[in-house]
Amino acid sequence: MNAKLYPLFDNIKDAHKRIESFIHRTPVLKSSLINELYNTEFYFKCENFQKVGAFKFRGATNAIRLLTDAEALNGVTTHSSGNHAAALSLAARQRGIPAYIVMPENAPQIKKIAVQSYGAKITYCEPTLEAREKTLELVQQKTGATFIHPYNNFNVISGQGTAAVELLDEAPFLDAVIAPVGGGGLLSGTAIASKAINSNIKVYGAEPLNADDACRSFKKGIIIPSVKPNTIADGLLTSLGTITFQAIRDHVDDIFTTKEETIILAMRLVWERMKIIIEPSAAVPLAIVIENKGFFKNKKVGIIFSGGNVDLNQLPF
Amino acid sequence: MNAKLYPLFDNIKDAHKRIESFIHRTPVLKSSLINELYNTEFYFKCENFQKVGAFKFRGATNAIRLLTDAEALNGVTTHSSGNHAAALSLAARQRGIPAYIVMPENAPQIKKIAVQSYGAKITYCEPTLEAREKTLELVQQKTGATFIHPYNNFNVISGQGTAAVELLDEAPFLDAVIAPVGGGGLLSGTAIASKAINSNIKVYGAEPLNADDACRSFKKGIIIPSVKPNTIADGLLTSLGTITFQAIRDHVDDIFTTKEETIILAMRLVWERMKIIIEPSAAVPLAIVIENKGFFKNKKVGIIFSGGNVDLNQLPF
Repeated sequence: MNAKLYPLFDNIKDAHKRIESFIHRTPVLKSSLINELYNTEFYFKCENFQKVGAFKFRGATNAIRLLTDAEALNGVTTHSSGNHAAALSLAARQRGIPAYIVMPENAPQIKKIAVQSYGAKITYCEPTLEAREKTLELVQQKTGATFIHPYNNFNVISGQGTAAVELLDEAPFLDAVIAPVGGGGLLSGTAIASKAINSNIKVYGAEPLNADDACRSFKKGIIIPSVKPNTIADGLLTSLGTITFQAIRDHVDDIFTTKEETIILAMRLVWERMKIIIEPSAAVPLAIVIENKGFFKNKKVGIIFSGGNVDLNQLPF
Repeated sequence: MNAKLYPLFDNIKDAHKRIESFIHRTPVLKSSLINELYNTEFYFKCENFQKVGAFKFRGATNAIRLLTDAEALNGVTTHSSGNHAAALSLAARQRGIPAYIVMPENAPQIKKIAVQSYGAKITYCEPTLEAREKTLELVQQKTGATFIHPYNNFNVISGQGTAAVELLDEAPFLDAVIAPVGGGGLLSGTAIASKAINSNIKVYGAEPLNADDACRSFKKGIIIPSVKPNTIADGLLTSLGTITFQAIRDHVDDIFTTKEETIILAMRLVWERMKIIIEPSAAVPLAIVIENKGFFKNKKVGIIFSGGNVDLNQLPF
């Protein structure tokens, strides 16, 4: 194990001090109705209420605040059409530096508008991995901007871990914490922080069965890339990175997968019972509890509601 | 003015002490994004997070807790297919007494299930005013249950006024408070409480143009019943009662109306920006600010989000 590859708890604590004044301290909500349904005591950390509507703002802010003044001058860049793009754009604007976002031409209009509204410059590319990487390289060459990877980045992971710090600050008695896993930034930070705070806390990843590369990678012990994943949880399509894979192997107890219909059921349950909006990816941890009732029975379970960005014209119900 | 017809502020304060341990103290939320859009500082009192998902639980609880033991024994009854029915059912169950709900046969399945889930007994009737009143009378004769009117009831109004007490406790500096108006229970309680706490606070009612009987009644000085109202704000279809009409005439500064499309726009804005679910009726106060930007500019405005019960299969977007 190379301890320097991924952050230690000290890095996460430092990140928390660094970003505290820029982020929302989101609430930890409970629902007696949902507790009763599954005989589980849930503590929901509501990152759907975070700035830009997702936990991604934590990691992006931490990474941007750690740039030297010389680096910051040239701005930041990334490839993403999702929450990381919006998070990086707003965090850059808050520091007063440019953000350059590489996005496939066919990205949803609503995501393009979100990123533009934060003042970022978008460079469109063909919707292929090759085109995306080549375009990013060109943008970097032209601008000198620092590339901030959506998850396989030490400082981004440190920032994402701060959500678990706040969750366990309010609910230190948890038996388990569950976070969704796509590229693994949130799950890595959550696991490192939770285990350092209390080594008895179990940490689980939650993944759609239709994009189960992290689960298979975890069980096999090598990174198995995601191939043509097809899930409503559009924030969880990416594969693990080298850094997040190592952090997850070292700190996560298990990764569970769940069916699409359970994700939709969990999402709808939260909307109807808690009256709050979470995106499909954020519903995946609750879905795994629903599919594994016996396993989580009578446990105190912390769940990170990772985001709340939903296209209301494209609802699954 | 007959001061005994509607509650005084003392009645509302007493109600608050009486129901405090049975209700949720709902949060007052802010949104810098929505503030910026309309140059207004909003304070949203989130009764969508109240038990049964609506402020109605306050009034129902107050009315039920004020029954004598002898009265309570025979239970309570009402005619409603909406939030009042659910609220009365749960409040009755909490006191351990029966609730008898009269509901038109054609009420949405989702509402029937909600009321049943709280253990109330439903008696179905034809969907006419006559059938409803006759059925209610039969239920009363048979059971001896006390009729708790959805809004034209002294104790119900006292209970509804407690939301404004909590709002002004957290935001005593407000320039104005806006509540939606259907039968007028919430608006009456809100106005009595707000004016008593600070007579400089303006209190406005918010009503759909397509169900503008309260506005016309207010301007004319006589109750003009609602005739075939057709609005997405399904909690605001009813006409004012004798008690609420008097309270509103005496304490409310004005009633504004708003178009259907602005209600939908306001509702969508709250869902997308605040990530919380409000029902169409709850969006009407924000809609009147949107249609009267100049009037509310640079003001500190409290808005009561009256409820969050929405059929996700019937969304307007």
